[in-house]
Amino acid sequence: MQWELIGSGAALLTMFGFVPQIFKIYRTESVEDVSLLMLLQFFVGIFLWLLYGIHIQDKIVIVSNVVSFITLVVAIGLYFKYRKNRSRKEK
Amino acid sequence: MQWELIGSGAALLTMFGFVPQIFKIYRTESVEDVSLLMLLQFFVGIFLWLLYGIHIQDKIVIVSNVVSFITLVVAIGLYFKYRKNRSRKEK
Repeated sequence: MQWELIGSGAALLTMFGFVPQIFKIYRTESVEDVSLLMLLQFFVGIFLWLLYGIHIQDKIVIVSNVVSFITLVVAIGLYFKYRKNRSRKEK
Repeated sequence: MQWELIGSGAALLTMFGFVPQIFKIYRTESVEDVSLLMLLQFFVGIFLWLLYGIHIQDKIVIVSNVVSFITLVVAIGLYFKYRKNRSRKEK
């Protein structure tokens, strides 16, 4: 039971790990210091995890990576939306 | 074999996922738009994954999360090192 809690906590914290970054981008409308390569690397990596989860038919792997994948799509979308704000901030 | 490649690719891409962000912080010396909460949430989440991996004695879970944990320690260290640069950039 204790280990189930630790495993669930680990899964929940990491699967929603990009949510604070999403809120920060939404609030500040600025992504100058955020690494697009980081977002894209996780995007591809999580997509491969998802494929792998489907292959091994593990529901926990599938669900966690679907959630992460959605947050990454949102983060990358916001990145491109606010990328143009760079020049404004440098003034 | 194909699925081993997909699983390995997934593991490699995500375990080194924060490396591009680390290089970006190192290069720009700026973390204004990076969410500290994101880094801390992954830090705790990955630590719990590591404990869980040790519990289930799964080498792949242990190794991936040790690597991620080290990159998060570096990223959080750089965050606090360059946090003070905020005012400089706003000038």
